[in-house]
Amino acid sequence: MDRLRFRADTISAQISGVLTAWGMAPEQVATTAAVMTHTDLSGIDSHGISMLMSYETLRRSERLRLDARPEVVRRTAAMALIDAQGGLGHPAAVVATDLAVEMARAAGVGVVSVRNSHHFGAAGHYAAMAAEAGMIGLVTTSAKIVNVVPTGGALPRLTTNPIAFAAPARHNPPFVLDMSTSTVASNKIKVYDLLGRPVPQGWVTDEAGDPVTDPGTAMAYIHEHLHGGLTPLGGDGVTGGHKGYGLAVMVQILSAALSGADFAARRPRGAPEDIGHFFLALDPSVLRPDGGYLDDVDELLDTLRATPPVDAEVPVVVAGDPERRHREDRTEHGVPLPDSLLRKLEAVCGRARVPFLLDAAHAQNRRSATS
Amino acid sequence: MDRLRFRADTISAQISGVLTAWGMAPEQVATTAAVMTHTDLSGIDSHGISMLMSYETLRRSERLRLDARPEVVRRTAAMALIDAQGGLGHPAAVVATDLAVEMARAAGVGVVSVRNSHHFGAAGHYAAMAAEAGMIGLVTTSAKIVNVVPTGGALPRLTTNPIAFAAPARHNPPFVLDMSTSTVASNKIKVYDLLGRPVPQGWVTDEAGDPVTDPGTAMAYIHEHLHGGLTPLGGDGVTGGHKGYGLAVMVQILSAALSGADFAARRPRGAPEDIGHFFLALDPSVLRPDGGYLDDVDELLDTLRATPPVDAEVPVVVAGDPERRHREDRTEHGVPLPDSLLRKLEAVCGRARVPFLLDAAHAQNRRSATS
Repeated sequence: MDRLRFRADTISAQISGVLTAWGMAPEQVATTAAVMTHTDLSGIDSHGISMLMSYETLRRSERLRLDARPEVVRRTAAMALIDAQGGLGHPAAVVATDLAVEMARAAGVGVVSVRNSHHFGAAGHYAAMAAEAGMIGLVTTSAKIVNVVPTGGALPRLTTNPIAFAAPARHNPPFVLDMSTSTVASNKIKVYDLLGRPVPQGWVTDEAGDPVTDPGTAMAYIHEHLHGGLTPLGGDGVTGGHKGYGLAVMVQILSAALSGADFAARRPRGAPEDIGHFFLALDPSVLRPDGGYLDDVDELLDTLRATPPVDAEVPVVVAGDPERRHREDRTEHGVPLPDSLLRKLEAVCGRARVPFLLDAAHAQNRRSATS
Repeated sequence: MDRLRFRADTISAQISGVLTAWGMAPEQVATTAAVMTHTDLSGIDSHGISMLMSYETLRRSERLRLDARPEVVRRTAAMALIDAQGGLGHPAAVVATDLAVEMARAAGVGVVSVRNSHHFGAAGHYAAMAAEAGMIGLVTTSAKIVNVVPTGGALPRLTTNPIAFAAPARHNPPFVLDMSTSTVASNKIKVYDLLGRPVPQGWVTDEAGDPVTDPGTAMAYIHEHLHGGLTPLGGDGVTGGHKGYGLAVMVQILSAALSGADFAARRPRGAPEDIGHFFLALDPSVLRPDGGYLDDVDELLDTLRATPPVDAEVPVVVAGDPERRHREDRTEHGVPLPDSLLRKLEAVCGRARVPFLLDAAHAQNRRSATS
């Protein structure tokens, strides 16, 4: 059976309805719904509307303040610190990105650090915002679930600590890299578990440092066992895992130590998440006012895409291409949402007492009888 | 037979002698010899005195100007562009790091971009310099040898494009990450070839995207064949190679597109290398004047080192620990140099007509009769 597909404005209206019912102010509802919807359009299904259940749980346990307003607590010509006041990360991240871009316009470079925040969706969204404004953007964030094992360690100590980097070009759309510093994100293991497929060697490690490939056992190592967990990017030490481990520590320092946010491995159970984010915007026209930077990025991206592929059917892409293709497809045909997710969202809407909009009547497609 | 070991001042004198004979100005000789010697002390044998043969080749082919003086060609309060004038990268990188730190002291953040440069040694050296000055340091550089294959590609298009990141703490020495964005650097393949050991799967790929494990074949794929080469960090697409590929592109943009340096894959054969570097310094005390940043980095590093290890004999370390241990050992016992390298250095000295200092009479140790 086909998945139902929904227009972006339907998804945005649904998200807005729920957030408003939860007490979020209109301006922040608009920001958050726009970011989450854009994320679903981009095919990053794990970070868009599917997050509402998690946000509901946080809200019910009083660890997420939907009525928070991000506050700039310190500011110089090129640096600022924002306190997200325990609210969702999206509004704070949009304020931070805008501020970093504004400072980069004036000073060439802007650094904004955010503390006391929560999940902000996909880091790449904010890096891409900077690139759309003509700036190079670098974004990192800490996270809440301690599931990444330092190289040579038996216990997880880090989170998947993502890095996003975006760079504008002249005739190409921006290069947009958005990556966890672990080999894979934990929801990839979940997908393999649902499909009953063996997990590729190098994704999950046990307390002895040996690879875990049984999907159910891998899930247990990530979500239940105190030992083992996800490997850092690179896998084990032989294949460069110490580099992914190092990048994860870099992200922790930039996101949390710089802002004063928490280190998840040391947070007492039940304490507020206090996630930290880092935003850097850099104006490439300051050092090359002739626009040579834009031409050089075009040459780089064009050359990479023209690399002869190992499989003639699968051209070489650059970061940002897959998400852009998703946006083109989903803008035209709608965002497909699985029935299991729709049932959960319907329940969220019921508890929030807002109309459920994601039913067959509001869908952009009709289910086909077969397939 | 034991390797001869030499004191840092002997190595520095040898490097200084050669560079001076090659026409480098005294101030830049002092800077370059200090950086190269520190690199050997830190155990990064591939990037210290062993580079002299390569520099000699570049000089003889008139692609390296030893008498160049790095020039600041553009400067704002927080950004600067340096033209290295075709000289060695070390003096330009030291000027750039000092300038980035100076701007960070005044503005909180400083970005310095360098073009028209050459090899600058280990990127971590400059990031660590920033950290020793109390700043967070981020350093990237392009390189000259096109040997890294984009994910899904049959040809190499990128260089090993390293990233270095250093962060000061209060009671810990700085965290210092220095990593290529490929799974391994090409000299690791050389070591396996010399030892006749099979290359671990995932380091080198052929034109069909299949792993190459025979060490001689791997060397050919890196140095002779037009197709295949090193994998980006993460290996193939399944184990996250697209992330290492993305990081390599990020480094290319920051190092070369921002400064106006070259993209090696598009450089005509025999053209000047025109390598670019990127330096960012960030003052962590601007946003947290109470010093909380330093305490948080200490807590992070202490917690990571205290992680129970999978092997009780091998404690979990953080980036920078191995190099610091090397420095302690080599400062006391000297830097060991293999005979094969000493013969090559002796020939370099002969051609430069400077005294060869790295003989048994100047060594810190005596060769043992056996072992």
